[in-house]
Amino acid sequence: MKALRWHGPRDLRLVDLVACELRPGEVRIRVAYCGICGSDLHEYADGPHAIPIERPHPISGRCAPLTLGHEFCGVVVESVDPEIEVGRRVAIEPAYRCGECLYCRQGQYNRCISMGFAGLMGDGGLAESVVVPAYMVHRLPDEVRFDQAAALEPAAVALHAVRTSGLRAGDACAVFGMGPVGLLTVAMLRQCGAGEIIAVDVHANRLALAGAMGASRAVNASREDSASTVFAATSGRGAAIAFEVAGSQASLDSTLACVRKGGEAVLVGLMGKAQIDVFDIVNRELRLTASVGYRDVFPTLMAWTARGLIDPSAIVTRKVSLAQAVSQGFNALLADKDQVKVLVAPNGEDMA
Amino acid sequence: MKALRWHGPRDLRLVDLVACELRPGEVRIRVAYCGICGSDLHEYADGPHAIPIERPHPISGRCAPLTLGHEFCGVVVESVDPEIEVGRRVAIEPAYRCGECLYCRQGQYNRCISMGFAGLMGDGGLAESVVVPAYMVHRLPDEVRFDQAAALEPAAVALHAVRTSGLRAGDACAVFGMGPVGLLTVAMLRQCGAGEIIAVDVHANRLALAGAMGASRAVNASREDSASTVFAATSGRGAAIAFEVAGSQASLDSTLACVRKGGEAVLVGLMGKAQIDVFDIVNRELRLTASVGYRDVFPTLMAWTARGLIDPSAIVTRKVSLAQAVSQGFNALLADKDQVKVLVAPNGEDMA
Repeated sequence: MKALRWHGPRDLRLVDLVACELRPGEVRIRVAYCGICGSDLHEYADGPHAIPIERPHPISGRCAPLTLGHEFCGVVVESVDPEIEVGRRVAIEPAYRCGECLYCRQGQYNRCISMGFAGLMGDGGLAESVVVPAYMVHRLPDEVRFDQAAALEPAAVALHAVRTSGLRAGDACAVFGMGPVGLLTVAMLRQCGAGEIIAVDVHANRLALAGAMGASRAVNASREDSASTVFAATSGRGAAIAFEVAGSQASLDSTLACVRKGGEAVLVGLMGKAQIDVFDIVNRELRLTASVGYRDVFPTLMAWTARGLIDPSAIVTRKVSLAQAVSQGFNALLADKDQVKVLVAPNGEDMA
Repeated sequence: MKALRWHGPRDLRLVDLVACELRPGEVRIRVAYCGICGSDLHEYADGPHAIPIERPHPISGRCAPLTLGHEFCGVVVESVDPEIEVGRRVAIEPAYRCGECLYCRQGQYNRCISMGFAGLMGDGGLAESVVVPAYMVHRLPDEVRFDQAAALEPAAVALHAVRTSGLRAGDACAVFGMGPVGLLTVAMLRQCGAGEIIAVDVHANRLALAGAMGASRAVNASREDSASTVFAATSGRGAAIAFEVAGSQASLDSTLACVRKGGEAVLVGLMGKAQIDVFDIVNRELRLTASVGYRDVFPTLMAWTARGLIDPSAIVTRKVSLAQAVSQGFNALLADKDQVKVLVAPNGEDMA
């Protein structure tokens, strides 16, 4: 069984592994597609960030070297869970949960004190097959293609961010950063009844894609002041809600600048220390709401995709084999911002 | 008519003014008490901050020199509004509102684009009498004393902060900074059904007062780690909501550190630029909610005070005459942290 394993920064190895035996509560998935995420790129470029290297993750029991990839789907090829039959097409919701902490007991499993993801804190989907806990498995509707299913995971991040916000029908929204999650946030806002949807980035191709996915206006922040444009597009009112998905100080500044008094900035992008102007935030009664991961959204996303209301695969710009994953996937994404989402097909196109 | 006027930093002048004629929609108040606020101290120590000096405020039409003091109450002595009779005891809600902007039209007058306060952007209550717009006047219930009424304004800031938060009955709360607003936030939380109410400051006398006002626990941050104490006091869970009322980086850090995942930090204290750890905030799905001023809370506060449910005057540590206001009020508050709220009685104790 071939797998792409993280051994260290700039050290991904395509290796042949012996498939391990299933333990209770586990299923084996033959992977159809696995997307490469921005966090995978960070681990590749200068990790480890989330990958455990000294102590095993408390739920997965694993540490590096491990198989990357947490955006995947496929077919059940082995199962010890009687409710999950072999041959079933499935999407994977790769979030570990302990089931016992304060947060898990309240159903807030994205806040689990041992929060982690298969493909970062345990073996993931950049492999011909992968073993996951049965609770990660969602039965895929027949109408949902595998290339759509592989993009459900970033779509889940986007939908959770929208659900975490106080979005009300017709609200003017701005989204900063047209990476995969930003683009899918635009799509979710269109599906969830936002009014103006203003997409902000510095790459023309990504802005064009944002328009195709539902943005009412695309702002190139390298050529115009995004906050001024947002105010102009909203009769001088400003955005009711702005989503910071780029993860940079400049984007955070613009996100806060473009919202109206009493408005909301939803923090999705990860960055370290940042500066904020508390005087301004207090005087405008802004709200900064953070969103991480997702919970309880995969079923909705699969249903919307099956009904043709959203198409998560719209962000996919390239499909490659497992052997091409580093050169045509990881390196291409780092070098070329016209690449948005690369899907890896570890078992070739016969499963597509 | 004697008034204490701000002419510049460290330049408050007790002057004798000729009372001006009332314009339509105005009433004249003989002041019973006027409290000295932290923002008055800032204007005195190193202003101007909010006081207009070059262009008049768009609603008051005034700029410096002007009479300080926005926490006041008294008796109506002249009125051109037929609904407000002479002799009525009143509390003043000193917030200007234009009535026409996007926010005023939605009733969010604390977000008015011309937001301002009588006593900062127009003449205030550190005077024998003051003229205010009729909309600022609330009829005082007979049961509410003037020394209680003078403290309704900071109590309004506190209650608005609690109302802006997502407080639910039984929530564990922490309050950082036991100045007047922090102490009154403790009192509001007690009145509004909070569970644990943990008060944090570095001054023993202020912490003792916090206990008297309803705090279940008082933490001296100069002697113990406030976040550790909050977690210990909440079975390791952390606060559901923490209020930052001190307005300092250290207090903001502690406020964010003591809340549980998914918890809320309410920003009330004013400071300039501050640093936050976005990575931590996103991963814990925190919410930062800003609160400024107040709206629609004076009637509730007067009713609660009349029924004995709260006592805003509990923060009052000294009462002085207008002639003593600088030496025994402003200077004492700057020098001595055991002084919390000083009330000035411009017409002497005969109105108390």
